[in-house]
Amino acid sequence: MWAPVRESMFLGRGALKNFARFKSLTLQTINKQVLEAEYAVRGRLPTRAAAIQQEISQGMSKYPFKELVYCNIGNPQQVGQEPLTFNREVLALLTAPHLLSNSEKLVEQGLLSAEAVARANEYLEKSAKVGAYTDSVGFEFIREEVCDFIFSRDGFRPDAKNVFLTNGASEGARLVMSALAAKHLGTIGFMAPIPQYPLYSALSTLMDSELVGYYLDEDKNWAVSLPALNAAYDDAVKRGIVVRSLVVINPGNPSGNNLTADTLRDVVRFAKEKNLVLIADEVYQENILTKHPFKSMSSIMHELNLDLEIVSLHSLSKGFLGECGVRGGYCIFENFDPEIMQQFVKLKSIELCSNTVGQLSVGLMVRPPVADAATLYEKEKNEVLGSLRQKAEILRETLSALEGISLSEIGGAMYAFPQVKLPQAAIKAAEEQGVAPDEFYCMQALETTGLVVVPGSGFRQVEGTFHFRTTFLPTLEKMQRAMKSFADFHNDFMKRYS
Amino acid sequence: MWAPVRESMFLGRGALKNFARFKSLTLQTINKQVLEAEYAVRGRLPTRAAAIQQEISQGMSKYPFKELVYCNIGNPQQVGQEPLTFNREVLALLTAPHLLSNSEKLVEQGLLSAEAVARANEYLEKSAKVGAYTDSVGFEFIREEVCDFIFSRDGFRPDAKNVFLTNGASEGARLVMSALAAKHLGTIGFMAPIPQYPLYSALSTLMDSELVGYYLDEDKNWAVSLPALNAAYDDAVKRGIVVRSLVVINPGNPSGNNLTADTLRDVVRFAKEKNLVLIADEVYQENILTKHPFKSMSSIMHELNLDLEIVSLHSLSKGFLGECGVRGGYCIFENFDPEIMQQFVKLKSIELCSNTVGQLSVGLMVRPPVADAATLYEKEKNEVLGSLRQKAEILRETLSALEGISLSEIGGAMYAFPQVKLPQAAIKAAEEQGVAPDEFYCMQALETTGLVVVPGSGFRQVEGTFHFRTTFLPTLEKMQRAMKSFADFHNDFMKRYS
Repeated sequence: MWAPVRESMFLGRGALKNFARFKSLTLQTINKQVLEAEYAVRGRLPTRAAAIQQEISQGMSKYPFKELVYCNIGNPQQVGQEPLTFNREVLALLTAPHLLSNSEKLVEQGLLSAEAVARANEYLEKSAKVGAYTDSVGFEFIREEVCDFIFSRDGFRPDAKNVFLTNGASEGARLVMSALAAKHLGTIGFMAPIPQYPLYSALSTLMDSELVGYYLDEDKNWAVSLPALNAAYDDAVKRGIVVRSLVVINPGNPSGNNLTADTLRDVVRFAKEKNLVLIADEVYQENILTKHPFKSMSSIMHELNLDLEIVSLHSLSKGFLGECGVRGGYCIFENFDPEIMQQFVKLKSIELCSNTVGQLSVGLMVRPPVADAATLYEKEKNEVLGSLRQKAEILRETLSALEGISLSEIGGAMYAFPQVKLPQAAIKAAEEQGVAPDEFYCMQALETTGLVVVPGSGFRQVEGTFHFRTTFLPTLEKMQRAMKSFADFHNDFMKRYS
Repeated sequence: MWAPVRESMFLGRGALKNFARFKSLTLQTINKQVLEAEYAVRGRLPTRAAAIQQEISQGMSKYPFKELVYCNIGNPQQVGQEPLTFNREVLALLTAPHLLSNSEKLVEQGLLSAEAVARANEYLEKSAKVGAYTDSVGFEFIREEVCDFIFSRDGFRPDAKNVFLTNGASEGARLVMSALAAKHLGTIGFMAPIPQYPLYSALSTLMDSELVGYYLDEDKNWAVSLPALNAAYDDAVKRGIVVRSLVVINPGNPSGNNLTADTLRDVVRFAKEKNLVLIADEVYQENILTKHPFKSMSSIMHELNLDLEIVSLHSLSKGFLGECGVRGGYCIFENFDPEIMQQFVKLKSIELCSNTVGQLSVGLMVRPPVADAATLYEKEKNEVLGSLRQKAEILRETLSALEGISLSEIGGAMYAFPQVKLPQAAIKAAEEQGVAPDEFYCMQALETTGLVVVPGSGFRQVEGTFHFRTTFLPTLEKMQRAMKSFADFHNDFMKRYS
């Protein structure tokens, strides 16, 4: 296919007609890494769901349900969660500062809190212009607020020059991984959990590197285990891979685990011992469902007095804010060579600064209101977190009661990753259709109940086991209904294929 | 340096102390493409300017000026331009929809226009949630508005499925270039103008590809010329480079040109003849200072009835909006293979959707108000554009009167790119200091007048010629003062080194 295209390059204008059918960019001439990259969270299931949604909207649905229940993406506000009033008030004022000229009246009318007005004024005095590029790494005063937040959370204070404000957490991961993907050293390996959030496999492929998966221990609520880390590492080294980095997602996506301090000590020591850059994906740190609290990997590193090169990622998109659409987050670099920090600054400069509304939202995330807006803020926050807890419980109750499904503790994040022990007949039926058995199961669940979940194969899993990832984000009422019809579906499915 | 680091990987924990001084990520072990990428717009000059700014702020300035005048970045709102009221009102309402519950009162009080309220309500009815991920390629209703805009501008209507909403225009360029950087075909070349916006050279380097520069014709107001395109292309092919794409920036950055329809016909025919993907960077399409209007490359392609694979980029950051901080833009793909479009959708999915405020701002950009908000909108728009015209004129008058400076027509965009005929003694003095002669000149201009501009070497230029890029964005008063002291500086500099 490529040959004639190249040929046409050397032909005169007269030849154009003959070659017009050859596109310049084809599946043969595209960057192979781009072609090979996978991103399963937005795969066949959601495509099918979109088609069903359209049929429902047009009143042409032939399915035994009236609406879809989207448990496939951690996108809380899409499925009913409301934003926090204080944060949005400050953002609205910063977006349209002329409203501040009459803010007293608006406060009197109960349209705005006085504290939102005060915070907006404070940020404006610090030159928080929404419409101008900021420093590529973000507003300095917000980066200082992030440092204050870390200090109050972990008891040590990073240097603001090592804090970058990013468009969500993904950008931070991409920044670091692209710096590590040094091909002159050989084939680069990035260690990441199995199951993993597919961002990491996609980025590895795009960077022509290898994802070195380490298995989480399903029997121990998806914990990271030292033997699994060592096994994955040793195997990769044996295969000649230069392992450079370890990704740990805590709380876990899709596994929903919340790692204990002991486990995190193992993680940090292992990364130091192997001289790996630790990518600490901690975007679910506010979503905790276990008795033990969230511990940051960075605090563990300080406790162990190790000078590990660590990047901690956080985001607006999760927690109780769920501000996915705003696209904001931060990454904190610790113990990196100052010359390398300059390289990161340069890389971020090429991308230009992250969006200012996202940057300002990071400030609001790490510094909640403390005056007249605090009561409502706490109420809204507790409602979100309380409701998540309640819905996780409904999910747990339903799934763990079902024969053929085993479910680990839901320790945090917004997900459960139940295992389905698919009958041989179902596996065979799937194979006959040429689809993965877990996709076969999830597709039937979708078409029978309207529940949209993601097959485990999109996240990788131990071969021969089958899972799916589900959020517990839709409203309580929808979750209750969905779980009821899902239980019926599952029992029926198991009967049919047993 | 790398050897001991690898060794440490195989040592037990006891060895850690000895190796703690070796970082995992160093200048030796970083991705070479990252190390080699350059991004001059944020180079030594702005670093020096930041230091001077700090001295001024602390009252310790020893310089003969009271303030810096930033003409180094196209960042209008940083240097005094105000955002458009209508757009910001709609955005504020979409950010804090609870304000809409009392919107009648706010309209009565003159705080909001009725049209802003109507538009916000309209977008909300179309499910414009600020806080949720949208489709990865953006809100569909905004993409339809972009199509309407193109139809009214160019007379043909793209398909909304080929429109992606992006975080500014850079993201669109990165998307396409990463797909084209197919190393299995050989060393990939991206044609881009010299002088060029350094995004393109940086992206080429990051993608391990080569920037194939074609010289703009300075004597013809920086026009693109067919001989220059052919010369660059032929030379690259001779060197074994697989040239895949042509970047044309119109109006030009940093050259400030506005290409004629005839020139654009040459460009489009050339790209088709060589089977190149045309990247049409048209972010300055509203910034026109010549008598002939802006013409989109896509409209030229339709006029010539050619089925070129073209990507058109646009952004909120320039024009009369100048919403750099919001980070919004779009790219429109035409004539791409549907299978390739799927690949672009996948790539965009990995990055997740662009920020929603930026997406909604694109809607506001392409669909201005027509009812009660229209008068103020037109007034604000004309003020911005009128002021830019006036300041471009001041710049032109000052610079073209100076001996040793030659200045092409300022045809569009926000920049001029004057040539300075540096005396031999100045070049020698610069060489002795180990800096580029144009940087030497710009640094002295900064330290003498407070004017911050960017040396031409950051954009590439014909060897042995020296330029600088300056915006004309600061307020009229500042521009007048800056130009006066700059003229004195220049004359003095030329005298000193002649």
